[in-house]
Amino acid sequence: MTNETLDLARQLIKQRSITPHDSDCQKILARRLQKAGFHIENMRFGEVDNLWARRGDASPVLCFAGHTDVVPTGPLAQWDSDPFEPVIRDGRLYGRGAADMKSSLAAFVTAIEAFVTLHPEHKGSIALLITSDEEGPAVDGTVKVVETLRARDELLDYCIVGEPTCSHRFGDTIKNGRRGSLSGNLTVKGVQGHIAYPHLAKNPIHLVAPAITELSQVRWDDGNEYFPPTTWHISNINGGTGATNIIPGTVNMLFNFRFSTASTVDSLKARVHAVLDKYGLEYDLVWELSGKPFLTPRAELANALHEAVIQVTELEPQLSTSGGTSDGRFIADICKQVVEFGPRNETIHKLNEFVDVEDLERLAKIYQIALTKLLL
Amino acid sequence: MTNETLDLARQLIKQRSITPHDSDCQKILARRLQKAGFHIENMRFGEVDNLWARRGDASPVLCFAGHTDVVPTGPLAQWDSDPFEPVIRDGRLYGRGAADMKSSLAAFVTAIEAFVTLHPEHKGSIALLITSDEEGPAVDGTVKVVETLRARDELLDYCIVGEPTCSHRFGDTIKNGRRGSLSGNLTVKGVQGHIAYPHLAKNPIHLVAPAITELSQVRWDDGNEYFPPTTWHISNINGGTGATNIIPGTVNMLFNFRFSTASTVDSLKARVHAVLDKYGLEYDLVWELSGKPFLTPRAELANALHEAVIQVTELEPQLSTSGGTSDGRFIADICKQVVEFGPRNETIHKLNEFVDVEDLERLAKIYQIALTKLLL
Repeated sequence: MTNETLDLARQLIKQRSITPHDSDCQKILARRLQKAGFHIENMRFGEVDNLWARRGDASPVLCFAGHTDVVPTGPLAQWDSDPFEPVIRDGRLYGRGAADMKSSLAAFVTAIEAFVTLHPEHKGSIALLITSDEEGPAVDGTVKVVETLRARDELLDYCIVGEPTCSHRFGDTIKNGRRGSLSGNLTVKGVQGHIAYPHLAKNPIHLVAPAITELSQVRWDDGNEYFPPTTWHISNINGGTGATNIIPGTVNMLFNFRFSTASTVDSLKARVHAVLDKYGLEYDLVWELSGKPFLTPRAELANALHEAVIQVTELEPQLSTSGGTSDGRFIADICKQVVEFGPRNETIHKLNEFVDVEDLERLAKIYQIALTKLLL
Repeated sequence: MTNETLDLARQLIKQRSITPHDSDCQKILARRLQKAGFHIENMRFGEVDNLWARRGDASPVLCFAGHTDVVPTGPLAQWDSDPFEPVIRDGRLYGRGAADMKSSLAAFVTAIEAFVTLHPEHKGSIALLITSDEEGPAVDGTVKVVETLRARDELLDYCIVGEPTCSHRFGDTIKNGRRGSLSGNLTVKGVQGHIAYPHLAKNPIHLVAPAITELSQVRWDDGNEYFPPTTWHISNINGGTGATNIIPGTVNMLFNFRFSTASTVDSLKARVHAVLDKYGLEYDLVWELSGKPFLTPRAELANALHEAVIQVTELEPQLSTSGGTSDGRFIADICKQVVEFGPRNETIHKLNEFVDVEDLERLAKIYQIALTKLLL
């Protein structure tokens, strides 16, 4: 199986599928899956290619989810080899998407092929949900496929997202949830004026400072068994005309919550407004919920993957909810158990991205064991 | 005398002397002054024309100071008439520089001409210090003339700066000082990081907020008889890469003190550093002293001008130190008594700048009375 996963990973890396382009990756996957008895549906939304493939009609449905798109290469001259010409050096397969996440896609396919060859009459269904817009705006990708599936009552039981979850050693981390991301665009108003006549002006930078202090010190929640406490941070602040003798009329801030299931969107919003109001600020605040949190407690799927990882890597993986958002946030809407597992993420989005060649086989093996545990 | 001051003001307004251009204004003035017995020195520094003219060698020296340069017109289409074609409408003389400060220059000259005609053997000396770079960087203008005079021990006793000082009614305000202006460029350092991993970052916006609050609430001094209390304001704040998922590594602020003679530059600097240090901030702070404060207590010059204003306008003028900086800050280095008096400042730097025609005669009369009181 080694060579098959490696070969397919190489084949996928050669496709220059920078977001939102799929560059025929899904065609390559679909051809293999069709041969393995899958029904193929291409779902194109906007300029995004999505693939929904399913083998069987019964429950439970175990879905593998991922993306064919990759982030841009950055300066080509700083790569040791062409990012779209996969090469092996020192036991590592180099190329853009090697870790995030074309190796996982390859492992999905070879694991499934091996499994259905051994167990053509497995119970339930196997599915794949593949998008080419995970690294981009994520508007016409997984979220749209999920909407389509929900509209026709096609729900999932288990979903394994192939994101690169491991940090130091392959097998050290399974993600069983992700924090939510809630952003605010805050404009605090003052009164513009000449700095030599401050009594005629109101300085919004001065006015908002104590509110920033208080918001940065709030303990929003204590997290819970799976989540660290919710955090709040300002990413950008801008006020002033550039002129050094003008007190500006407004100051703008962008802030972001990474929040756990221990808080709700509404409670966080209300508490921010309460602080701003307490300081008597006049402001505009536009909220954007970019991802609800999701959480998959220890149950069949997490346990199956946990055991599979131990069996293959002899490491005990940690359940983690850290990191940014992923498409798991969308899939959780139609699937109670969503976990993420994939290769090491040390080089993702960086120059000289790689995956350890030995991990390709091990990853496919882990996926195959999960199939065996859940669909036999 | 009315027509003479008006005629000369019109002649000066016609010269398109946008900073740093003098456009022959000083030549026009010099010709008149030479006829009145002045010794003329043209002092060109860089691209700036300056004029130093003096009549007599004795003390006391009463100097009139001002500038021939004007600020740009702004959108021409929004002027009711050509800003460089002076016209009278409804008793007002319109044109760029009508109030700031070509009318004062004209009144200097006609007042002096009238005075020396009546009193050719006046005591002391009369001088004029005219620059064409008051509205610009103010680097090669008055400050350089003052350096030159100081280098040859040519000190002044009294200086009347012709800046437009009156607000509601002509005669309501004499400025007997200006606050100082001390600026800081502050960069507070944190540690940049992904907003999803805030424990690996240090948010400089959060860190600086309590220091901003404290600095904005400090009572720096109580001012004194002549000055309002010192004020501190942030004019600009910028932090963030634009990306909404990055905690920035630094935040930059520009701030400015307008300070009275009740505080010193060193004490203000020390107190800002103390607050920043109290909050354990890591920072770079670059100071720029753009103007030391100056103050002329009630003495011969302020009293002479005060009485002259009452005599001509029947208004009791207020002594004030408000407003921005002026070239008075430089002249104060070689002159113990510096006051400013000129027309109403309602339209300076604006569209449709004007001076009330009747004030031209009254201004020249006031200057002439001051000459009489100080040099007879």
